[in-house]
Parts: sequence; structure tokens; C-alpha cells
Amino acid sequence: MKIVLDAMGSDAHPAPDVAGAVLAAREFNLAIILVGDESRLKPELAKHDTRGLDLSITHASTAIGMTEHVEAIKEKKDASMNIGMKLVKEKQADAFVTAGNTGAAMAAAIVGPYALGRIRGIKRPALTAALPTATGRTLCLDIGANADVKPEYLYQFAIMGSLYAERCLGIQKPRVGLLSNGEEEGKGPMVVREAYAMLKSAPINFCGNAEGRDIPAGTFDVVVSDGYVGNVVIKLSESLAKTLTNFIKDEIKKRPIAMVGAALAKPAFDALKKRLDPSEFGGGILLGVDGVVIIGHGRSDAKAIKNAIRVAKEAVAGQVVQVIASGLAAS
Amino acid sequence: MKIVLDAMGSDAHPAPDVAGAVLAAREFNLAIILVGDESRLKPELAKHDTRGLDLSITHASTAIGMTEHVEAIKEKKDASMNIGMKLVKEKQADAFVTAGNTGAAMAAAIVGPYALGRIRGIKRPALTAALPTATGRTLCLDIGANADVKPEYLYQFAIMGSLYAERCLGIQKPRVGLLSNGEEEGKGPMVVREAYAMLKSAPINFCGNAEGRDIPAGTFDVVVSDGYVGNVVIKLSESLAKTLTNFIKDEIKKRPIAMVGAALAKPAFDALKKRLDPSEFGGGILLGVDGVVIIGHGRSDAKAIKNAIRVAKEAVAGQVVQVIASGLAAS
Repeated sequence: MKIVLDAMGSDAHPAPDVAGAVLAAREFNLAIILVGDESRLKPELAKHDTRGLDLSITHASTAIGMTEHVEAIKEKKDASMNIGMKLVKEKQADAFVTAGNTGAAMAAAIVGPYALGRIRGIKRPALTAALPTATGRTLCLDIGANADVKPEYLYQFAIMGSLYAERCLGIQKPRVGLLSNGEEEGKGPMVVREAYAMLKSAPINFCGNAEGRDIPAGTFDVVVSDGYVGNVVIKLSESLAKTLTNFIKDEIKKRPIAMVGAALAKPAFDALKKRLDPSEFGGGILLGVDGVVIIGHGRSDAKAIKNAIRVAKEAVAGQVVQVIASGLAAS
Repeated sequence: MKIVLDAMGSDAHPAPDVAGAVLAAREFNLAIILVGDESRLKPELAKHDTRGLDLSITHASTAIGMTEHVEAIKEKKDASMNIGMKLVKEKQADAFVTAGNTGAAMAAAIVGPYALGRIRGIKRPALTAALPTATGRTLCLDIGANADVKPEYLYQFAIMGSLYAERCLGIQKPRVGLLSNGEEEGKGPMVVREAYAMLKSAPINFCGNAEGRDIPAGTFDVVVSDGYVGNVVIKLSESLAKTLTNFIKDEIKKRPIAMVGAALAKPAFDALKKRLDPSEFGGGILLGVDGVVIIGHGRSDAKAIKNAIRVAKEAVAGQVVQVIASGLAAS
């Protein structure tokens, strides 16, 4: 299996990207192609012990910045994201991974000069994220590819999310929920109510409406929404967890006796930190495109990059594209 | 000032409702009318020392249960919510407070047999909640009255939220944000983009798009959205805070040494608990109706009821209805 990594992706590129690729190549026994500015990648790669690893560099003369508009994907044909996508499109690699600009990465896959195109029958691709919950993780989609949706898009997101969770994440009969503002059927905006009606007869384990509280509670394995509310959910969750943790830390620092207590309680806080650690999650898959595309967080460190590559490997091994294509035909 | 309290509202009614009314009558020097089953309210009230307080009971033969459909508001004309609303409509009281079924309470105010009706020019009322943030509180609206919105509804929510924050909550030039999935103008679903264009020339301190992360961060004083995503935000926030706190507690319990630490760190956790305590917040105002209506959490205790009554008092004192009516005419 061969994975392409956009080595110019993360905020601190290329150091974490290259380091993560080295870790992944060793741990998962994968071939990895690093795409980016060769004059920067070569010396970066030379810092690592890469003996016995299948790591190569494909040059890309430019890259898309984190704050650039998605239009840049069309203007910068030779950006690392486009060159990486080209390798997948031309079947020279099995998957593309980036920790770069999310909007640009989606554009590269869907409308860029080397766009992979959609799986036949898929109306809109959807981006996923696996949020930590009380009991494990909940796969949320869409988290940003489609701000406006139609009922049939939500229906397809549910099918894709269920198939991905089952075949690539190993969750049996994933419990699929439709995000709404009330648990009963009939609650929610028109588009959600219409999607509900369609999902009742879908060949998945559709469990009805999910509410905001169900996500941290882990009531569902897959929660489906439009990309607007999904994006709000992801950013709110990350920010709230950080705000709460900082608040506890600040309160502890105010009180000497509490500081002693905090030192003793540190293992518990470390466990929380690990639980919330986005680097454990790696990256989210863009479902519905005709190829495996994983988009990680801009703040990814080497471990996060390694885990994003793991997500790509699992998706390739689970044959996600074929599974969705045949699952969709059956539904 | 005279406030009507639905004494059959909270999950554990009427005890917390009556106790909260007694606290509020004493602390805020208010006249309070308790509406509900007289045979239950009389003995409940007799448990308290009410000397010198202006507390009275108005009988209502029935009440709306927490799990009843909103249609019940039309079927049960003599429910405590309807009788309470009637007192406000007939100007026998200045505000209505309930910790009952949120959907039914909104219905009672908007379409019930004694509906207060909308302020002239207001297209849709919006329900608010004040979420705890890193720096204070952010007023979110709508959190559940309107699952589907039009751009002009969002525009009016922003005007109402800004006026309420300024005149009743004492926030000068409230920073108003429009919830979206990206901070730049042009991000978000069509309805959000159109509302953004309208808000640029609104006579308020409109600060652009708010993202999910801005809510816990406290970047804005008022965050405007439709009632679908607003409801998800509220329920997700409450649940995530609880999940995180429980996770830390569970981890601490696993480790004897951490338990000692936790005992010492307790004041810090108590501060967090107080910060997140929904009873501090009391209840959210239903903006846009021609009268003051406050809806509290079903799990309200006496303190929460007292604080919901405080929110009502501040809204009446701030003349929220008149302020919105004249502010809307000016915008």
C-alpha cells in the first residue's frame, strides 16, 4: 500500500509532517510519498533514520497557505495538494493525506485540476470527524463540506457514514442518528424531517433523531448533519473542552492547597488530556469521492500525522470506495 | 411589579417552584402569583415563612406535562401555563415565568388560547439562553423556537438580542455575531450569507460571523442562529461539560493518590461547578412576544426558579417590550 502525504500541510510544516511519515512508514510498514518543496523536504528527511523504510519525495513547487481562499486550488496547479491528488488519481498511490487548509483540500479532491471526482451516484461528498465521547468516539458528518443540504444528501451521508463505520472502523451495526432539535420524529427543520422520512427505510441501523447532548454522551456511533451545524459542533466541542480545562487549571493555581491536590490528581488529568487529544484521532475522511482522502488538523504534530496516515491505511484496507459504491447501488 | 409563576412547571413541581417564589419575593421585594392546583400549592406554601411577602395563588385545574406534545396547550385551556399567560395578557401581572415544557411554554405565548401575540413588526419570536464562557456569558438566540428561518428572522434576532443585552443585561455596545462555519463573510449556508449582508448595515455592533469555538471563548456577547443549530449548541454544551466533569471524577476514583489530590483540589472543582451551574442563569427570555416570558430548565431547583424570576424582573425593569418595539421601528 502506498500513501501520499502533503508534506507542506500542517501549520508547522514540513517538520511534523515528515516526522509523522517516518513514524507511520515504520509502524505500519507502508510506502509513503512526501509531496512538497524538495529543497526543504530532503534536509528534513535526512534528520531521521529512514533505513529500510519506503519513503520518497515528489516535488511540488508551491503550496496552499492556511489562510488562502479555496480558489487558490485552481490558481496554483502545482501546489502540493494538487500534485498529491494527481498521484492518487493516476493510481500511483492509494490514498492522500494532508493536515493543510481544509477547504482547499476538499476543493482539490472535488473540483481541483486533479479532482478525484465523486463515486457514481453520490450527490455530495461529506467530511467526517470522530469526536471523543463518554464511551468512545462518535463519527460526525458532514462537518464542513456542505453548508446547504437537501434531504437526499443527508440520506447519503447516513449511508456512507454507516458503511465506513462498519467496514473501516469495525463497528458492528453502527447506530446512526440524524442531528435535530428534539428526539421525536417531526422535530427539526424541514430538510431534517424529510431526511428522517427517507432514512426510516434505509438499509442501515437508523435510530432516529440525535440531539446535541447525544454526541458527548455517545448515544450514537454515527451522527449525520449538514456541514454548517456539523462544523459548529466540532469547533464548539474542541473549544469548550479547552475552556473547561483551562478554567480548572486557573482555579487550581489560585489556591496553594489546590495546587498540591492537582499535583496528586495529575494522572487523572493526563488521562483526560489523552482522551481529548486530537492527535489520537489523526484526521477525518472525505467520504463520497472516488479515492481515499484524509484531512487532519492544521495543528497536527508528528503523532497526529502518523495517525492520519493510519486512518488512510484503514480506509484503503477496508476498501471504502468500493464499499460505498456497492452499498449505494443496493440502497 | 407583579410576576406570575407557573408553580406546576419544574420536573419536581410544585416544591422547587414554590420555594423559589418565596426566595424571590423576599430578595427582590416582588409580588408573585403562583398558578397551579390550589390544593397542592396551599400546603406547599404553608411550609414556608411568608410573613410580609406578597404571595398569592391563582387556581389552575390542570397542567402540561414535560413529555406532552405542544398541541396540549390548545387542548388544555385551563392549564397553569395558559392561566398564567392570561394574567399577563390581561395586564394583571408584568411577566410570566415557567420551568415547564419549553415547547408548550412557547406555544402558550405565541399561539395558545391566551397568546400574548408578537410585538408589531416582529416576524418570529426567539428563545434565548445565556451560556457560560471563559469570560462571562454569551447570549445565544434562537435556541429552539424556529427550526427553519429566513434571513430577515436572523436579522431581527440580532436586533432583539442586542437591545436585550444592552438594556436588560447592562452590556454596553454588545458584540453581536452570526453563527457560521467560518469567520469570513461569505461562509455559511445561503440564509446566513443573506442575513450577514443585511446585518452589515444594522444599527447594532455587528462583528461578523461567529464560529462554534467563539461561544465558549466568549468572543461575542450575542450569538445569533436559527433555533435548530442554537438548540444543538445548548444541549451539546451542557452535555459536554457534564461528560468531561464525570470523566475527571471517574479517573480520579481509579487512583487512591489522585483521590487525595482531588480532595485538596475540591475548591477549584466547586468553582467550576458554580460557573456551570444552570441555576445561576435561571431562565431564558422569549424575545419578540408582546410581554415578558421567561422559560427555565425543567431541572430547576428553588435557586434556579428564584433566578428565573430575577431575569423576569430585569426584563420588566428594562422595559424590554417597549425597547424592542421602538428599536425595531428605528432599524
